[in-house]
Amino acid sequence: MSLPVLVIGNKNYSSWSLRPWLLLRHFGVAFEEVRLLLDTPAFAADVRRHSPTGKVPALHDGDVRVWDSLAICEYANERWLDGRGWPADRAVRALARAAAAEMHAGFVALRTQLPMNSRRTPDAYRWDAAAQADIDRVQALWRQLRAAHGEHGEFLCGEFGIVDAMYAPVAIRFDGYGVAVDDTAHRYMQALFALPAMREWRAAAAVETESVAATEALRSPR
Amino acid sequence: MSLPVLVIGNKNYSSWSLRPWLLLRHFGVAFEEVRLLLDTPAFAADVRRHSPTGKVPALHDGDVRVWDSLAICEYANERWLDGRGWPADRAVRALARAAAAEMHAGFVALRTQLPMNSRRTPDAYRWDAAAQADIDRVQALWRQLRAAHGEHGEFLCGEFGIVDAMYAPVAIRFDGYGVAVDDTAHRYMQALFALPAMREWRAAAAVETESVAATEALRSPR
Repeated sequence: MSLPVLVIGNKNYSSWSLRPWLLLRHFGVAFEEVRLLLDTPAFAADVRRHSPTGKVPALHDGDVRVWDSLAICEYANERWLDGRGWPADRAVRALARAAAAEMHAGFVALRTQLPMNSRRTPDAYRWDAAAQADIDRVQALWRQLRAAHGEHGEFLCGEFGIVDAMYAPVAIRFDGYGVAVDDTAHRYMQALFALPAMREWRAAAAVETESVAATEALRSPR
Repeated sequence: MSLPVLVIGNKNYSSWSLRPWLLLRHFGVAFEEVRLLLDTPAFAADVRRHSPTGKVPALHDGDVRVWDSLAICEYANERWLDGRGWPADRAVRALARAAAAEMHAGFVALRTQLPMNSRRTPDAYRWDAAAQADIDRVQALWRQLRAAHGEHGEFLCGEFGIVDAMYAPVAIRFDGYGVAVDDTAHRYMQALFALPAMREWRAAAAVETESVAATEALRSPR
């Protein structure tokens, strides 16, 4: 049987791609990677061969084709992780799923105004009150989960899992835009950045030569 | 042990509330319902007592508090449905989860321009190309799932499950705004509307006396 194929976008920019990639890599699932370049003329045609939504990420595993980052994580959890992607305790798992689903459906201002750009370093660029409310909500959620369920590890519910994969792009956003964070968020972000799989992704993003103009334009005026 | 409590919004308008309510009711899970009135001064304060996001729905089951419609459905699937919320076959389950997650994260134009209003009847109000693209994508997805996996029933993957609960509000939108639909969509919508639980929800919505001005304003000019 051939390896599963994960179709992703640029590592520097594609926050949705990072989620399942990080999960698979962290748990040592072997896969082939296909990288499509966002914001290029070829992207729209190429992605339709892999994904019915015209978006990355997408996963092919034999005849199974799954799109959507959260659905790919759920599939991987069943297919390769034997359930280790979610906390073992049902009540904790419910909270982890709530946090993951909240990220999946919400935080529009944060995602729009602070798009992921792994190469970015902080400058004077700032965002509006709606994005700040999203930032505050993320940190409140991280505090809640860490306080209730993080005692056995450095991640939101203890050991690294799907909920952390869903929030890993947010950590890169907070870092790159210079968001002021509380101690809980700071420690959690450092734990994410220390993961070998996260280091591998960010190192690859650092040497990508392509750029997305709309994201790079989000800079403070000179 | 006391009954689980599901906190919802107005049945006429709260598409996100309909999803878990329909799932629980269809599968005969006993629960207590708390209805909070959207678009009222009391809502913001009331909802915070139930949900950390300030949004409905939220579920309380003993000490477990779950927010987010998709996470509540996943929790209910584990807690009361013994897995019957998703298709039994792993590959079909992957597609059902992809479709559910796509609904959860996307279709912003559809959700914004055609918000759920169960009492609505079609008029000349129309939407833009982005909303129409969402409408077309929903129908393409329904055709894909029905063609591949609907042979044993009338719903997207055969029997009624979480993926149908996630799309049930879309059926109400299509109906109320007079969206032109293909035969697959028409038959699927009729199957949803014939469910006893769906009929109960819509009957309750029909006699609610409260209204949300912003949604009701989406009418054709007189």
